Amino acid sequence: MDLHVKRLSNLRSLVDAESTGSDLIGLVRELFPICRSITGDGLRRSLAKVGEVIPLATHEVATGTEVFDWTVPKEWNIRDAYIKDAAGRRVVDFQRNNLHVVNYSAPVRARMSLRELRPHLHALPEHPDWIPYRTSYYAESWGFCLSQRQLESLADGEYEVVIDSTLQDGSLTYGECVLPGQIADEFLISVHICHPSLANDNLSGVAVATALAKVLASTSHRYTYRFLFVPGTIGPIAWLARNPAAVQRVKHGLVLACVGDRGSVNYKRSRRLSADIDRAVAHVLRSKGAPFELRDFSPYGYDERQYCSPGFDLPVGSLRRTPHGEYPEYHTSADNLEFVSADHLMDSLTTLLEVVDLIESDFHFINLSPMGEPQLGRRGLIGSVGGKAAKPDQLALLWVLNLSDGHNSVVDIAERSGLSFDQLRGAIEALIRCGLLEQGPE
Amino acid sequence: MDLHVKRLSNLRSLVDAESTGSDLIGLVRELFPICRSITGDGLRRSLAKVGEVIPLATHEVATGTEVFDWTVPKEWNIRDAYIKDAAGRRVVDFQRNNLHVVNYSAPVRARMSLRELRPHLHALPEHPDWIPYRTSYYAESWGFCLSQRQLESLADGEYEVVIDSTLQDGSLTYGECVLPGQIADEFLISVHICHPSLANDNLSGVAVATALAKVLASTSHRYTYRFLFVPGTIGPIAWLARNPAAVQRVKHGLVLACVGDRGSVNYKRSRRLSADIDRAVAHVLRSKGAPFELRDFSPYGYDERQYCSPGFDLPVGSLRRTPHGEYPEYHTSADNLEFVSADHLMDSLTTLLEVVDLIESDFHFINLSPMGEPQLGRRGLIGSVGGKAAKPDQLALLWVLNLSDGHNSVVDIAERSGLSFDQLRGAIEALIRCGLLEQGPE
Amino acid sequence: MDLHVKRLSNLRSLVDAESTGSDLIGLVRELFPICRSITGDGLRRSLAKVGEVIPLATHEVATGTEVFDWTVPKEWNIRDAYIKDAAGRRVVDFQRNNLHVVNYSAPVRARMSLRELRPHLHALPEHPDWIPYRTSYYAESWGFCLSQRQLESLADGEYEVVIDSTLQDGSLTYGECVLPGQIADEFLISVHICHPSLANDNLSGVAVATALAKVLASTSHRYTYRFLFVPGTIGPIAWLARNPAAVQRVKHGLVLACVGDRGSVNYKRSRRLSADIDRAVAHVLRSKGAPFELRDFSPYGYDERQYCSPGFDLPVGSLRRTPHGEYPEYHTSADNLEFVSADHLMDSLTTLLEVVDLIESDFHFINLSPMGEPQLGRRGLIGSVGGKAAKPDQLALLWVLNLSDGHNSVVDIAERSGLSFDQLRGAIEALIRCGLLEQGPE
Repeated sequence: MDLHVKRLSNLRSLVDAESTGSDLIGLVRELFPICRSITGDGLRRSLAKVGEVIPLATHEVATGTEVFDWTVPKEWNIRDAYIKDAAGRRVVDFQRNNLHVVNYSAPVRARMSLRELRPHLHALPEHPDWIPYRTSYYAESWGFCLSQRQLESLADGEYEVVIDSTLQDGSLTYGECVLPGQIADEFLISVHICHPSLANDNLSGVAVATALAKVLASTSHRYTYRFLFVPGTIGPIAWLARNPAAVQRVKHGLVLACVGDRGSVNYKRSRRLSADIDRAVAHVLRSKGAPFELRDFSPYGYDERQYCSPGFDLPVGSLRRTPHGEYPEYHTSADNLEFVSADHLMDSLTTLLEVVDLIESDFHFINLSPMGEPQLGRRGLIGSVGGKAAKPDQLALLWVLNLSDGHNSVVDIAERSGLSFDQLRGAIEALIRCGLLEQGPE
Repeated sequence: MDLHVKRLSNLRSLVDAESTGSDLIGLVRELFPICRSITGDGLRRSLAKVGEVIPLATHEVATGTEVFDWTVPKEWNIRDAYIKDAAGRRVVDFQRNNLHVVNYSAPVRARMSLRELRPHLHALPEHPDWIPYRTSYYAESWGFCLSQRQLESLADGEYEVVIDSTLQDGSLTYGECVLPGQIADEFLISVHICHPSLANDNLSGVAVATALAKVLASTSHRYTYRFLFVPGTIGPIAWLARNPAAVQRVKHGLVLACVGDRGSVNYKRSRRLSADIDRAVAHVLRSKGAPFELRDFSPYGYDERQYCSPGFDLPVGSLRRTPHGEYPEYHTSADNLEFVSADHLMDSLTTLLEVVDLIESDFHFINLSPMGEPQLGRRGLIGSVGGKAAKPDQLALLWVLNLSDGHNSVVDIAERSGLSFDQLRGAIEALIRCGLLEQGPE
Repeated sequence: MDLHVKRLSNLRSLVDAESTGSDLIGLVRELFPICRSITGDGLRRSLAKVGEVIPLATHEVATGTEVFDWTVPKEWNIRDAYIKDAAGRRVVDFQRNNLHVVNYSAPVRARMSLRELRPHLHALPEHPDWIPYRTSYYAESWGFCLSQRQLESLADGEYEVVIDSTLQDGSLTYGECVLPGQIADEFLISVHICHPSLANDNLSGVAVATALAKVLASTSHRYTYRFLFVPGTIGPIAWLARNPAAVQRVKHGLVLACVGDRGSVNYKRSRRLSADIDRAVAHVLRSKGAPFELRDFSPYGYDERQYCSPGFDLPVGSLRRTPHGEYPEYHTSADNLEFVSADHLMDSLTTLLEVVDLIESDFHFINLSPMGEPQLGRRGLIGSVGGKAAKPDQLALLWVLNLSDGHNSVVDIAERSGLSFDQLRGAIEALIRCGLLEQGPE
């Protein structure tokens, strides 16, 4: 009998909320100052920090490599950048905030009038104190970002303009953490790690993915988990191009982005709309009791765009809190360390842990006493005095028994009963223990 | 031509509302005082009363008989029970209300202090004047139920405690009324008849089922109707275990419970969710014009739990008014003769009659003039002056003609048109009479 | 490369709103005074007017011809009709309003008292100034319609009653405009043209159909378009009976009626409920931004009743503004030239043009770079500075690329993206131009 006693996945029981919350915000803080881009040393240093927490392999893809419709671009590195006024003061200074340089700017070293300089300056009139985040990948140019107040304070006259960057052949870097499970089928977690000093977008995703990998590395699990820490767009495209066999094994996947702000959880379904991952996330959010939002797939977003392109159509959804572009601080200097919190990072992680628990446990169980209800009372599963209302635990027992006919998986039972996976797990384990339930063929 | 003239089921036309309402409440009143349980003479006497109205066979299943996961329990009978205070007064007296004894209590005859007695006393602090209904099936024990006020008035001191019951080998009894139809396929109506002096739960169900059987016994019908009057849970399990052939013939079914209170009609779908019975009841409720509620199946409830267990998965829904457990009077002495009324019992019966009419008439008819609309005017089916709005009768003619293509049954037409079955019946009969419609192959 | 450059249908770009609006109301005004019926010279004169705008064949079907369940009735013509009072004054006069005669009235020439005359008089007590429209097809009789005020002013005494009409063997007339396309598959547009001086019902439909045919006649198109100008009910039945081969080729169809009033657009789905035409109209209405209503098919309405009869079940929906019978002016003298406007006729036409554009363009396109997103930036399809929100045009590019996997037609993409067909057309044409998209096999 003991051979059949099954314990279902319960990752949350392995996690201490307080210390994990502290780890989460700690990693965001540690990574925040680094100037990342889609290539270059900032990216490598960031991956090295992640590699201190979880086993991480880094891959380098040489400049010029063709990956589907794209070519791996030059490697960008930057040492310094500034605009000096006539008096030699740094009126815009990369050393104070790396958002001040348009990311991927070509090197420049020139003196010019404000009129000549002006087309290279980006500001946000509607948020006069914030510095915007701008990029110029795939089209060589340069520029500075500054607050509207800074822009307005620039006097006419000549300025010294320096971007001490390099754009040279090198490579694109991404990190990969594979945690082998009992089966080769994979659960993919992907986060972009190319943005410079922006906290929610997407150091929050990096931190939560790292914490999730750390939990999974500490325990056995059914699926093989693959975590990708990639530069946006070109990163997943490079990975997809180089890993055709692994692509075939992806059975579930999530892109994590913007998971540290105070907004409620927002899930964007995969292109398939009702893949197992879509149903599992929807159920976890419904049974949590907190506000949430579900959205259908759209091809605008983060790297789910690549995983869900028609040539792959992987079952990969996207978990966010406030979606990118829907908060004013998005892609500005106001997406800073105050914008995210340990509590919200932890809430995102907790949601993911329950999603993973449910996916890990999504078996088809078989009721071994399917003709009428089995007598639960003599097995000690319900109280002996009748006549009162059913308690949730009893409901879970009844739902699991009623639907475990070989056609309904645990996700099916969860959806139809509306009960939380915690409740179902307890019922399933109890029914297995007393011989009323067994796992069906997969 | 006459051979093709068809009259569709119209049970309501056979029923006089006033006398039937009076019969319904009369039977509830007659059965109310009897102390029933899941076995015993109270059950037998109740079945005998039903048997005075309709042809009823009673079956006895011996104690110890194994029925699936269950064993038929001992037979319980009770003559008297009371708690006497030190002065010899019956402070709790079974003769005044049979709810005072925990149903199925083992015999006891003892003197004990209030402190010793207290664990055996059940009351409802939130409704201090009501006596709760409690049972102790399948776990031998004893107890008394009393109002909170009674409980609080008990002084310390010694009490004489007597339950003059027997728990002995005997049998479980259930009643069965089979009304053969033109076909062997069956329509099952099941009611539990094990509760003692509780009016809505479930003498209301017993009375409505009896009245429905009486109507069906008085006329010819297509389906074979089987009415079961059974003790809850163990009753249907015993019936299911002993009647495998009949089980196969059940094409539609309903469990009736709590159908006499003033609440609106509430229908719980079968486990299949869209069986013919589910669609027929939903349509009847939608076209009645009165408030109603539809709910999906859940495995918590009355005997639909057994019929809808995964080994059977019969198309059996449950018709109720206020569902069990959702009214404060549920399983208390306040579920009494004032709690139910002839009008609400009659409304439940009327709903059932229309459901049966619709199921009986759920044929596929064929429009014999399907190319364009047939000319209804020259057949006297619509008025000759044109230009005005269509009347409901005309709409029914048009809907029946339009959808009678061999793919749509009467329930399909009812659902899609939203017209009441009375309207459709009139149209169908008129179209058959003038040769525009005939019944298709079944 | 040029061989693959495809321009999608864009009918609206061919239409000048002001002059077309003027043409629309002009045709309604021109046709308004004619006394039409389901047969006769009024119908022929009306078709001749339409034939001045578009190429129109007229067909005559002889009285007595059997068409399915119907027989083509006698031809009705009328020269004059009146009721003269004792003083010889025309108190009811067909020359003032042709609604005064019950349409299809048999000839009468008699003197009678008011009491004898009264059963032949029809008025509307609830709208005392309006003359009702009444017909007596298929049952020989006669009558007059008049306002309630006129009716009440009739003094007792003798009246001279004259209806100078003829009901004789002749023929039923209908008009047909066929515009051959690149394929033989047909798009059917049907309007009834049998009502006398009623503007919205259905000179609005006649005018809009004529204008749509005029646009289509001026350009090439994929489908073959067939416009039917028919007397109600008997007209489409006669056409269906006489054109079995064309019936087979109808892939999409619309009945137009009541399309000139100020109500919002209301679409009644075909009997199939989700035919391509149903989905296309729904999408156009959803993306227009104006209020609208979608209704499921019902067999009560105009000539969609015939096209959607079960023997044909054609994918023919009905486009209306306020549906017939749902405005008080319906079938009264208040459905006059003030009740319709050029703007509303034009809005109905514009909606139809976009529906036709979408149906014409409903191909399956294939993304030629389906592995990940293609790099739009280097093809000049999106801006080079990143970090800002996507513009609608970019969204359209992404949606078209993402869903063009061979399984989704343009209507599918339109539905799922929610983008207007104008946006999708621009994206499709741009993607074809740069070689990222091609048309799949049909």
